Amino acid sequence: MKTLIVIAHPEIKDSSTQAFLKRAATRNLSNVKWHCLDLEYPDFQIDVDTEQRELMQADRIIFQFPLYWYSSPALLKKWEDDVLTRNFTYQDQDGVLAGKQLGIVVTLGTALKNYTAGGSEGFTISELTKPFQAVAKQAGMEFLPPFVVDQFSYMTPEQKARLLTDYQNYINNPHPLSFDGQQAWLVQRLRDKAQRIEDDQQRTLLELTIDQIENNQTELSSLKDQIEMIKRGDNG
Amino acid sequence: MKTLIVIAHPEIKDSSTQAFLKRAATRNLSNVKWHCLDLEYPDFQIDVDTEQRELMQADRIIFQFPLYWYSSPALLKKWEDDVLTRNFTYQDQDGVLAGKQLGIVVTLGTALKNYTAGGSEGFTISELTKPFQAVAKQAGMEFLPPFVVDQFSYMTPEQKARLLTDYQNYINNPHPLSFDGQQAWLVQRLRDKAQRIEDDQQRTLLELTIDQIENNQTELSSLKDQIEMIKRGDNG
Repeated sequence: MKTLIVIAHPEIKDSSTQAFLKRAATRNLSNVKWHCLDLEYPDFQIDVDTEQRELMQADRIIFQFPLYWYSSPALLKKWEDDVLTRNFTYQDQDGVLAGKQLGIVVTLGTALKNYTAGGSEGFTISELTKPFQAVAKQAGMEFLPPFVVDQFSYMTPEQKARLLTDYQNYINNPHPLSFDGQQAWLVQRLRDKAQRIEDDQQRTLLELTIDQIENNQTELSSLKDQIEMIKRGDNG
Repeated sequence: MKTLIVIAHPEIKDSSTQAFLKRAATRNLSNVKWHCLDLEYPDFQIDVDTEQRELMQADRIIFQFPLYWYSSPALLKKWEDDVLTRNFTYQDQDGVLAGKQLGIVVTLGTALKNYTAGGSEGFTISELTKPFQAVAKQAGMEFLPPFVVDQFSYMTPEQKARLLTDYQNYINNPHPLSFDGQQAWLVQRLRDKAQRIEDDQQRTLLELTIDQIENNQTELSSLKDQIEMIKRGDNG
């Protein structure tokens, strides 16, 4: 699965959040392309052909940006206006994006809890990202639930470690939303990691841990099946 | 009351809709400023000081644009990102926009009836304009219900005449939403017109018509009062 991350951030070079996400996206993950519009097109002149080629090669497209006036910074909108031509995009005109996925990674300077009815921001992220959801709908793309980075600068090291895994899951896991999909992806990543360990003892320890996780999953599935059978009255 | 209309339309020179609205906004209406960003800033380099000065002088600010990917064209977003600095805008930082009004005039190429749950566009104009509503909220501005121009090119002459009056009401009437406010504004505009008629007979005819409208309004008010009294059981 190939992922294209389209980033808009007018102050990308000073953003520790984006630097963190870039390390997460490009270290140990294959098939992830990091594409910052501000570095590529500081003059707002988008190369439409190049951008459309990149989109055609991706299975998952991520728009990643800090929330600027309750939407993306202007350059991503310029990119949409220029690149997403009608023939290229509209599903009912055989647009080429149909079946791909669209995700939103939005970083917040104000706490997420304020984005609610009655809160200081007044509207939810789900409400504010509807224009992007509408693009996905028109293109026949699957819209992924927006991934929110809630005030990165206030995060503890533990929260950042969790963010790293969750973010990698969001951009790289073929089934990022289901619990089983998240588990399978995690196991696969651990197996990849085990293969790269040279010390025999350490590798064996990690492999045993992975086996244990998988055994737990099997047991969980078995217990779920038994509960279903009991519910159906089929308990003999 | 001063109104500033901030227009974003990448093909403004070819737009018959915008030409129509411009005639409506600038003919016979005083205190309306027509301000097209595409003509002013084709290179996306916004003059922030000038724009902030214009905003400070306006009582009602209108964002006017064709819907591009379920939002404004990119240049208006650039304008927001550049001009609406935090100190200038946030009500809780003594921003200067508090108490002003923000209106949205959006022109549609696809029929308005498709902007609904289950429709081909999937989302309502109220949903898609929430990011603008959130700006108004943060700035302490009154957000006016969006004014939608529904497929201008398919309108009959009668529909266009109606659009002209409704649009002028939206941009120029101090109380554009209430029925009484609309009537009072219409009568005032007719009186202004009567004063400019040189032919005595024609002017008298129009003045008599205006008197008739006002008499009707008085009678309507009186009937409403009677109904209220009857409802209260106070019918003696």
